[in-house]
Amino acid sequence: MKVIEESCIGIVGLGLMGGAIAIALRRVMKDGNPQHSGAIFAYDIDTETLETAKTQGVIDQGFTNSDEMLKSCDLVFLCLNPSTLLKFMGKHMGAFKTGTLITDIAGVKSGIVSAMETGLRDDLDYIPGHPMAGSEKGGFANAAHCDFHGKNYILTPLKRNKIENLDYLKTLIFRMGFSRITETSAALHDAKIAFTSQLCHVIAAALIDCEADREITRFGGGSFEDLTRIAMLNAPMWTELFIENREELLRRIEQFEGSLDSLKAMIKGGEEKELIERLGLVRDRRAAMSG
Amino acid sequence: MKVIEESCIGIVGLGLMGGAIAIALRRVMKDGNPQHSGAIFAYDIDTETLETAKTQGVIDQGFTNSDEMLKSCDLVFLCLNPSTLLKFMGKHMGAFKTGTLITDIAGVKSGIVSAMETGLRDDLDYIPGHPMAGSEKGGFANAAHCDFHGKNYILTPLKRNKIENLDYLKTLIFRMGFSRITETSAALHDAKIAFTSQLCHVIAAALIDCEADREITRFGGGSFEDLTRIAMLNAPMWTELFIENREELLRRIEQFEGSLDSLKAMIKGGEEKELIERLGLVRDRRAAMSG
Repeated sequence: MKVIEESCIGIVGLGLMGGAIAIALRRVMKDGNPQHSGAIFAYDIDTETLETAKTQGVIDQGFTNSDEMLKSCDLVFLCLNPSTLLKFMGKHMGAFKTGTLITDIAGVKSGIVSAMETGLRDDLDYIPGHPMAGSEKGGFANAAHCDFHGKNYILTPLKRNKIENLDYLKTLIFRMGFSRITETSAALHDAKIAFTSQLCHVIAAALIDCEADREITRFGGGSFEDLTRIAMLNAPMWTELFIENREELLRRIEQFEGSLDSLKAMIKGGEEKELIERLGLVRDRRAAMSG
Repeated sequence: MKVIEESCIGIVGLGLMGGAIAIALRRVMKDGNPQHSGAIFAYDIDTETLETAKTQGVIDQGFTNSDEMLKSCDLVFLCLNPSTLLKFMGKHMGAFKTGTLITDIAGVKSGIVSAMETGLRDDLDYIPGHPMAGSEKGGFANAAHCDFHGKNYILTPLKRNKIENLDYLKTLIFRMGFSRITETSAALHDAKIAFTSQLCHVIAAALIDCEADREITRFGGGSFEDLTRIAMLNAPMWTELFIENREELLRRIEQFEGSLDSLKAMIKGGEEKELIERLGLVRDRRAAMSG
C-alpha cells in the first residue's frame, strides 16, 4: 500500500458521513505534506454537491460515473446505506483496480460482511468498518460539523485481510481524529450496536411518539432534550438498520422492557429502600463504564 | 419589596442548586451595584461548605442555626428535597420575618404546595418554583458548573401571592440567567415534569440496569452517552421524586411502553413502509417542538 499522502482515495456517496470523511482526509493529506501527490475523489448522483465539494477544496474531482473513478482508486470508502451498498457492489465489482482496499461505514455488519465474503473478487481487500460518529442533520451541507475527535471506530476485519492494509487503515483512522479503534467480529458488533445505537434511537422515537404537546420543551431541563435529540432521525436509513438487525434489536428492546418493568413495579409499590439501592447500583455502574 | 441589590437573601441548603443560586445572586448584586447593601446568607449543616462559600465570596455569612439567619431575610430560597423541605417548614415556620418572600426549587410541586397553602403563616408569601437546571454531579463543589443561561424556570403561583413579590422573583430569575419562565398550576407542572424529567431518568436508569458490560462505551457513538448521562443520579432524591409523583409518572411510563410496543411490533413484522412513515412523523414532531 502507498503512503497516505500519495494515495488516491475514492468516496462513494458524498452525504453527511462521506463528506465528513472527505474533509478529514483533506486535512490529513495537507498536514502530512502540503505538496502531496495524493487525491480525493468522490462519486455521487448529485452534481451540485460534487461541485460544492470541489469548489471548497474538499475533493479534487467529482464523478457521476462511478466506474471512471474506481479505476484510479487505491482506497475506496463506501458511504452508502447497507442495501444500496450491496447493490452498488453487485453492479460495479468489475470496475475496481486490482489490489484496491475497500472499506465501508454501515451501521450493521453481519449481512454485508457475509455477502462480501462470498461475493468479493479475490484481488480486492475489504475491511468492514463503522465510524461511531454522525449527526441528526444529514447531507454534505452538514458534514463540516461532524467532528471525529474523541470518537470510536469499530473494525470487523476478515481473516483474508492483508496486515499492511489493516495497518494502513488504522493509521488513517487515527489521523482522521478518531481516538479509539475496537476490532471485533461482525456478530458481536451487531449485538453491541443494537444496544448502544439502535435501542437508543427506538427509545428516543417512542418518547416523541407518545407526546403531542409542541410546547413540552418549556418543561425541559436537559434530560428530555438529551434523550430526544436523536429522534430527528433519517427515517429510511434507520428503518433499514432496525430491520436488518432486528433479531438483536428485539432482544435488546425486551431486556430494556424487563428493567423498565422492574423499576415501574418498585415505584408503583412505593418501595423506597429498594429503589434507592437499585438507583445507587445504576449510578455506580454508569460511573464505572469507561469513556 | 426592596430592590434586589438591597435585599437580604437566605439560602436554606447549600448543595448543588443552592450553591448555583448563591453564585448567580452574587453576580446579579455585583453587576447591579458594586457597592450594594444587599447580602447573601446561607444555612447548611456542613460548616466546611459554608466556610468555602464565604472564602470564595459567594455568600456573606454562613449559619448553622437557621433561625438566626431567617430573622434577617427578605427572600428565602428553600433548596431542599421535598420531604426535608416540609419538615424544615414545620419546625422553623416561626423564625421567618414578617413579609418574607419564600420560594423553593423542588422537582414535584402538588404535595408541597397543598401543605404550604394550608400551613403557611398568613404574613409570609410562598411562590412555588422549579428551576429546570442541574447536573448529574451534586454538591456545592460542582455548583459553579451549573449554568442557568438559556434554561427554563417554572413557577406555580398561588392566588394569594402578592403581585409585587411575583414581579420581584421573575425579575430576579431572568437576571440570574434563565431565559424562559412558565407559569402554570402545580398539577400541570407535575404532569409535564413526569414526562420531561422523571420518565427520562427512569429510562436512563433502565438502560444501564440492563447492561453489565463496562466496556460498552467502546461501541458508543453519542446516543448511548446522551441517553445515560442522567443515570448518574442522586438516588435518594430521585426515589423521593418518583414516589411523590408516582401517579403521573406511572401514567407516563405506560404511555411510553405503548409507543415502544408499537415500534417493536413494526420492527418484528419487518413493516418497512409503516416504520419509515412513523419515524418520519417522529422527526417532524421533534423538529416542530420549540426550544
